[in-house]
Parts: sequence; structure tokens; C-alpha cells
Amino acid sequence: MTQLITEREAADQLLAADNILLLAHQYPDGDTVGSNYALCLALRAMGKQVRVLCGDPIPERFDYITEGVEMPDFEPDFICAVDVADPTLLGPAVEAQYGSRVDLCIDHHSTNVGYAAATCVDATCAAVAMVVRRLIALLGIDLTPAIAACIYTGIATDSGCFKYLNADATAHRMAADCIEAGAPYDMINRVNFDIKSRARIELERLALEGMEFHHHGRVAVMPITNEMIAHSGATENDLEGMTPIPRQIEGVWVGITLRQKADGNYKISVRTGTHVDATAICTLLGGGGHVRAAGCTVEGTLAEAKAAILAATEQAIPRIVTS
Amino acid sequence: MTQLITEREAADQLLAADNILLLAHQYPDGDTVGSNYALCLALRAMGKQVRVLCGDPIPERFDYITEGVEMPDFEPDFICAVDVADPTLLGPAVEAQYGSRVDLCIDHHSTNVGYAAATCVDATCAAVAMVVRRLIALLGIDLTPAIAACIYTGIATDSGCFKYLNADATAHRMAADCIEAGAPYDMINRVNFDIKSRARIELERLALEGMEFHHHGRVAVMPITNEMIAHSGATENDLEGMTPIPRQIEGVWVGITLRQKADGNYKISVRTGTHVDATAICTLLGGGGHVRAAGCTVEGTLAEAKAAILAATEQAIPRIVTS
Repeated sequence: MTQLITEREAADQLLAADNILLLAHQYPDGDTVGSNYALCLALRAMGKQVRVLCGDPIPERFDYITEGVEMPDFEPDFICAVDVADPTLLGPAVEAQYGSRVDLCIDHHSTNVGYAAATCVDATCAAVAMVVRRLIALLGIDLTPAIAACIYTGIATDSGCFKYLNADATAHRMAADCIEAGAPYDMINRVNFDIKSRARIELERLALEGMEFHHHGRVAVMPITNEMIAHSGATENDLEGMTPIPRQIEGVWVGITLRQKADGNYKISVRTGTHVDATAICTLLGGGGHVRAAGCTVEGTLAEAKAAILAATEQAIPRIVTS
Repeated sequence: MTQLITEREAADQLLAADNILLLAHQYPDGDTVGSNYALCLALRAMGKQVRVLCGDPIPERFDYITEGVEMPDFEPDFICAVDVADPTLLGPAVEAQYGSRVDLCIDHHSTNVGYAAATCVDATCAAVAMVVRRLIALLGIDLTPAIAACIYTGIATDSGCFKYLNADATAHRMAADCIEAGAPYDMINRVNFDIKSRARIELERLALEGMEFHHHGRVAVMPITNEMIAHSGATENDLEGMTPIPRQIEGVWVGITLRQKADGNYKISVRTGTHVDATAICTLLGGGGHVRAAGCTVEGTLAEAKAAILAATEQAIPRIVTS
């Protein structure tokens, strides 16, 4: 059982520690990268030996965070995971080596499973970068332009560039502090929200071409097949952020993305607007998730996967079926 | 010649006035609608008779601002234009009736031509809604949820949901104040940044299908023909925000959109990244604009328009031509 601790207590643990290993989650996003690097830079400014470890390579778009920050190897005395709700999210190699001996976990997921000796979690924060920013203040370290860039990246990426419900007043005020401290927010926003690869553009075109509407446009189904992925030349990175597309169409209650996996089966993502429960649909096919975003996996051809998820949708949301 | 006045002086003019007509610009966007309605609500809270006039119908997506706000007709004693840099932007009918007798113009465009008796302009503001918010404070009126929704709309829409360079610390802090005052920012962001019509999705697909790359992918050309518009069923509203698409592609220096007009000729929009001057390209074809966004009109077929803008690009930016 983990001990739930305050930010002051977490800061005191970090103050007392040295030879610190920070752990990011696999498939690294802006929040886990930004938060780990921000904490690393702050702790190094105090003269501590610190490094960041991630189970996957950090995507190139975060070069502005990682460039010039050396990560020399050393035997850690203190292990701190940041933005990692469950040790399996470290990826198999990092989990095997460090998963059972994490001293401190800093997080913003209410679903944190409590695997670390001590856990400091604030689920009201849009990004764990907001928790980290407060910890850095408690450590007595100022926001440098580099740290501010890291914190801003976490807040902006986890809030869809301030578009989602979690972009509350606190998130905006903390972003303002980062901008004032010298975060190059214009470049960060361009890199994270503006630039798409040619492969991604082509994949979007193919996916839109394959989009189908059902039940008077209330259900939109978008396929992403291995053939489309191969034809477009899209990488895993290019596939990020495709699942919201069907739900963003006017009049759509249920947006469904069918993503073919390497084994040929389909990973299905369901996104819903107000008043429709995505989990109710996906649990019928053995999946789960949140009210507005859920998922499941279906075996079979595209036609079979489509039929299965449409049947589940009709069963879970009978009022979607109108004459 | 207009008199440039401070926000305090502008607030004093509004305090002294009654029977106030507020003017929005034609092709109304979130900033002109939000700012005019915010000022209208604040002045009405002081017991004044006020109405907002716009040369075009206000788009349905702003129903959350306009619904329930009656606009009874009356003979104005004081005319105030908000977010209108030039009287021609009022549209021909409103300009003819009121363009030469505007008492006060509240603006954030450095290019304001100074047509009003008095002008209160702050070009450092991302949105004129930020100027209006400060004026409302000077009038002694609190941010109600309805006023906060208007101000938030102006800031968010004029900053691309906090993505552009103008989304500075001040913009974020004022957005935070609006959220705290009860602006339904989640709904506002969904309406303005998330939902696309089916026609728009189809038009994007067709436009992406027609996209061409030149000069090793440094130049992207996207056509939007009348045939595509007709086939997709897109309205004028659906065409908004298409022009950034080609420039958002990785590696593209110059993003060109060729939009066919009703008369068959092409309105060309050029968007550029850092280090390429869009105006230098468009002035060669009789157009103009800003460094990163410029435009011109070309007569002829799609092939002719494409050839003309590509030749102008090569002439203006010779280093774009590589073997």
C-alpha cells in the first residue's frame, strides 16, 4: 500500500535525495517528457545527479526539450516516476528493472494504482506538469526559460492547446507564468499542434474517404487499415490524434475509429458527445474506458468489426436508432 | 483626423453617453461579436439603451452569445464601432448610414485608419475583447457569466484557441478571469474549434486529394474549385479556416490555397513559415498582405492560376528552387 503524501512532503523527499532516476511512461507524450525534464533541470540546478529514463525513444518533435541535456548513466539511490499511473505503463524493460522499487510517484491520474512507496497525486490538474511546477517552487528553484518550456509543453499538450474542459483558470494562469518566464510558446504550439507530416495528411485523406455515416449521421465510422497506413507511409507518430476526427463532425453522437493492428484485428476507439456513454458501448465487446472515450478490440475483417461495433452501439444506445 | 484617447477617456465617453449604437464588422467573427455583445450587456446593466448592429447575419455558432438578447431599434445619440479598423469593413449598407459619424472606435488593429471622432486602440492585445474587458472594469461593471462568455470567445477565437503568437501571458490571464467568472469555455471551444460540418469534411478530403507539392515539398498548392464546393455542399461558413492547411504540412515553406470565386477566377492565399515573405510573392501578382499571410487574385483556369503563383514564388524566393 502506498503512502499518499502532500506536495510539501514530496518536495522534502526530493530535497533529501541524490542520484535520482526519473521515469517517464512509454509512448511518451508532452506531459511526461516535459514534466520529467523540468524536474531533472530543477534538481540539477541544486547540484544533484539526476537522469530521465523512458521505455521508448522520445519523439523528435520534443528535440527542443531534450537537446543538449546529457543523460549519463549511474546507479540510482532514489527512483521517482512522473505521470506514470501504473508500473506497466513504464514498458516491459523499465518495469522489470525498476517497477517494484519506485520511491515516489508524482501524478495527476485519479486511477493511479498506488505502486510506489509514496504517491503525490493531484487529479484536479490538467497536466502533471502543474504539480511539478509547484514542486519546483517548493524546492526553491526559479522558472528558467528551459524549465518554463517543459512545464508549458505539459500543460498545452495535455489540454489540447487549452481546448479541453481541463484547461481551467489554474492551467491558464500557470501557462501565463511560463510564458513570462521565457517559454517559447509560439514554437512549442507550432511543433505540437500545427505541423503534420505529408504521410499524416495522406492518411487523413484516405480515412475520410472511407468514413461512413449511420443512423441519420448520428454515428460516424472511420477505418484506418494496414493498407491505408502502408500506402500513406504513416508511422506510429503520424497516427496520434486521429480518433477524435469522426466525433468532431456536426450532428455526430458517436464517433468510431477502427484501427487495424499488425495482427489484422481491429482496435476500436469510441468518442461520444454529451449524453452518450462510450463505455456502455465498448463493455459489450469486452472493452472499457471513460464516459466520453472508450475502446475495445474486435477480431475479424473490417466488415465484421464494423458490424460488431454498430450492433453494440444500437444495443447500448437504442434511441440512436430512428426511422 | 481622429483623436487618440486612453481607455479611461473612452470609458468616460461611454459613461456620459446613452442611446448607444455599437457596430460590428461584416463577416463577423468571434472577436467582433463577443466584444460588441459584452459591451452591450455591460452598458445595459448601467440602465442605458444600447444595441448592436452588424452588416451581415451573425453565424449560428454564436447563438450562445446572441440568444435572448433583444435588439430593439432606436435613433442613436452615440455611435461606437468595436473591432472595425476601417469604415469599409462595416459593409456597404452600414457604412453608408453610419460610417462617417462614428463617435468612438475601440480597436486592436495597428492599421486602424482613424475614421472615428475618437479612437481607443491597443495593438498589443490579441483580441479587442481584451480592451473591452478593461473598459467594462473601468465602467464599474462586474464580469457576469454572459459577459465572461463574450470576452472569452473574443480572446480564444482571435488567438486560434491560444495557439498563435498573440496568445501571451496577458491573454491567458484574462481568459482565466473569464473562466472563473463562469464562461462556459468547454462549450465555447467545442463550438468554435471542434465541430466541423459533413460538407466541410468532404471539402477537406477533396482539397487534400487535389493537393500538389513542388520544389521538394517546400511548396504545397491546394485547389478549392467551385466544382468541389458544389459537390461537397459546403457553404461560405464551411470554407473558413481552410487556408492554413497547406502550410501546416511538415517541410512546407510556402502553403498556397487557390480558391475559385463565383466569376471563375482564383483568389490565392499564401501562408509562409519563418524566413519566407508571403507579401513578396503576392505583390508580384498585384496583391499584398503581411509577412506570413498574403493574397492576390488571378484570372484564368486552375492550371493558369497555379502556373502564375508558382512562377511568382520562384521569382520572389529564388532559393526555393533547388536541383
